[in-house]
Amino acid sequence: MTTVNVGVIGYGTIGTGVVRILQKDAALLEKRSGRPIALKTVAELHPTPREGIDASRFALTDDALSVCRDPDIHIVVEVIGGVQPARQFIEEALRNGKHVITANKELMAKHGRELLVLAHEHNVNLGFEASVGGGIPIINALTSSLAGNRFARIYGILNGTTNYILTRMYNDGVDFDAVLQEAQALGYAEADPSSDVDGHDIAYKLCLLATIAFDTFFDINEIFREGIRSITARDIAVAKEFGYVIKILAVGVQRGDTDVELRVHPVMIPTRHPLASVNDAFNAVFVEGENVGESMFYGRGAGELPTASAIMGDMVEIVRTLALQRSGMASRFGGSTHRIRPMGDIESRYYLRLKVADAPGVLGAIAQAFGQQEVSIRSVKQQEGDGTAAELIIMTHAVREARMQAALTDIRALPTVDEVCSLIRVGL
Amino acid sequence: MTTVNVGVIGYGTIGTGVVRILQKDAALLEKRSGRPIALKTVAELHPTPREGIDASRFALTDDALSVCRDPDIHIVVEVIGGVQPARQFIEEALRNGKHVITANKELMAKHGRELLVLAHEHNVNLGFEASVGGGIPIINALTSSLAGNRFARIYGILNGTTNYILTRMYNDGVDFDAVLQEAQALGYAEADPSSDVDGHDIAYKLCLLATIAFDTFFDINEIFREGIRSITARDIAVAKEFGYVIKILAVGVQRGDTDVELRVHPVMIPTRHPLASVNDAFNAVFVEGENVGESMFYGRGAGELPTASAIMGDMVEIVRTLALQRSGMASRFGGSTHRIRPMGDIESRYYLRLKVADAPGVLGAIAQAFGQQEVSIRSVKQQEGDGTAAELIIMTHAVREARMQAALTDIRALPTVDEVCSLIRVGL
Repeated sequence: MTTVNVGVIGYGTIGTGVVRILQKDAALLEKRSGRPIALKTVAELHPTPREGIDASRFALTDDALSVCRDPDIHIVVEVIGGVQPARQFIEEALRNGKHVITANKELMAKHGRELLVLAHEHNVNLGFEASVGGGIPIINALTSSLAGNRFARIYGILNGTTNYILTRMYNDGVDFDAVLQEAQALGYAEADPSSDVDGHDIAYKLCLLATIAFDTFFDINEIFREGIRSITARDIAVAKEFGYVIKILAVGVQRGDTDVELRVHPVMIPTRHPLASVNDAFNAVFVEGENVGESMFYGRGAGELPTASAIMGDMVEIVRTLALQRSGMASRFGGSTHRIRPMGDIESRYYLRLKVADAPGVLGAIAQAFGQQEVSIRSVKQQEGDGTAAELIIMTHAVREARMQAALTDIRALPTVDEVCSLIRVGL
Repeated sequence: MTTVNVGVIGYGTIGTGVVRILQKDAALLEKRSGRPIALKTVAELHPTPREGIDASRFALTDDALSVCRDPDIHIVVEVIGGVQPARQFIEEALRNGKHVITANKELMAKHGRELLVLAHEHNVNLGFEASVGGGIPIINALTSSLAGNRFARIYGILNGTTNYILTRMYNDGVDFDAVLQEAQALGYAEADPSSDVDGHDIAYKLCLLATIAFDTFFDINEIFREGIRSITARDIAVAKEFGYVIKILAVGVQRGDTDVELRVHPVMIPTRHPLASVNDAFNAVFVEGENVGESMFYGRGAGELPTASAIMGDMVEIVRTLALQRSGMASRFGGSTHRIRPMGDIESRYYLRLKVADAPGVLGAIAQAFGQQEVSIRSVKQQEGDGTAAELIIMTHAVREARMQAALTDIRALPTVDEVCSLIRVGL
């Protein structure tokens, strides 16, 4: 069988993993794909030597475009991340008839449609399993194994850094800032943690999952996004007391024929829910299909080898079917036109923590403000006050978000309310 | 695009699910597979009308072989189960160039090799995703998404009936016989429950998973199998007290280059392990790949629509690639020759419950018997006795099974030991 040549653009963590697997598992990959797969070129501006890798067995270049144009290369792996120049490289590779495999969630979330169409026009594949959930084969599951299902809901834990932080906060009762600094020291969190802790990374992944599950290309900017900076050790302690854990979730829900909810925010989930035991850097995706019912996919959401494993899965599939023109991914998505339901129209239960005056009539005024917005209270817990201030913890029944926000505006205006410390959506 | 015609052999629960999905989701299946898929014929000896199915839109026959030979049928779905006549039908369909999809775990476990080779010779596919884990896409994950991994371990909960029984026993403290009768009344368990409660069903599934994960066709008869009939409410209560749940697991572990452990038996697993929260009729498969690390796949392991969902996943993949000859499944497996390690050579921790004389020196005699076999005791709990008999609960450190069994033989012979009530392997 003629050898399949691979070019890798980007020699960082994931690129190193891809090169490592191509070298150590060459025999396995040939057996499983049916053809020998050889790494020909790695493109990197500032390459550093990697332990356990024989750099004499492939070419190094600083010219990524030459990889995209090399007539001897059949598959290009893009693992530099970010929109540019990654987009230019992928487009050039597709135009030159290369199959492309990418781990680039931001690029796929923002320009996936155009790239999939371009791949389709040039009769090549664009694999992006690695861009969602690291080693978790969720995209393959949605597009192949579960292809006989409409999807009612897809939600889960899609970011290892924030899940590690929330797990540490839950286990050790420490506050967000302390854990973040520790995570940064350990290299689990970036120096600028915004992409993780503010939910951008999760929103990109949700956008891609929703594209497949709901058959629509969505605008990343329309996805509601709330990070975990505001979660306190106190909230987590109270949640624990009530039998909940706090996780930041990506949530996609079909609503009627036309709407979907797409949102990223912290959620209090019951400890008995399978997602509650997904801890540390692990990710998990929950899918509800009309035929398969509830399914969950759990694994390492990031890291050199797990992410490279997903890339190799795409590669083996591409090599197996090289003879075939099966680049219809773009035409398989985007056939529908769901709109994202405005956040004010979603329904949820809520947890609130307030600092109030330690005086009579306080609860009454708050209850009245809720009553006016038809927010019904499920339970109230007032901590022993110090004579001046007290802590009030309120769990509500399900209500429209807009009504809850309106009630909060009134409650914040009450003279007896010092502060609304926390608002967290509850339940799954 | 020309229509792909399907014949279904067997109109029981799963066959009904397949027919249902083919009728209600025809548009979805065409969109996702790229071609219209039509149900042409259903073969069943004693068909009964099914609610919500339009029987005027396909032919019914009692001659399954005619479906296997029909030149207009491209894909044959076998869902009658058992070895014969299912084997004859599948072989006939393959010889006539049909792609075949089966949910038949017993047939695939016993004759999968010959059938996959036959499919290979006739350049057609033999899909069997539905034969393991119902709706859980574990076979596709192992063969495609995780193809870039060697597998160190694969284990999980693969039978819904026994998991339902153990869940009820754990939650409600009831004994095995009571729950079994209830499950039979509810239709969750067969009138003859042996296939489930004695672990045959699980062993078939483990055999198939091991074939893929360890690249060897194994002899089903060499797989150690121990069911759940001997699990008592008392054992489960004690396990609970120690922070464990009891599940019946399928366990496959690579040992060195040549050996694998393949075994089916109850295991005490720590409540914090993700498998511990897999309850009722749900199944879950845990996979440890050298690159992807720990992954878990969770979902409904049986039932009309979940199992049919897996069949449709195979069908969509087959239709997408009809143009291509990609029937190399057989050649992708069986390249290695692992032997199944004898049960006496496995290592495990153990839980024992003994009825002993309520007299001095009892524990000393038992400890000595263990000492002679180098079984080291981790913890002992003696229940307050009634003056004549007492209950002894012993947890050991890891030791070879053969040594544990030898020690037990000596312990059973002790005059002060009335009975060894339970022996359960511990830990993951």
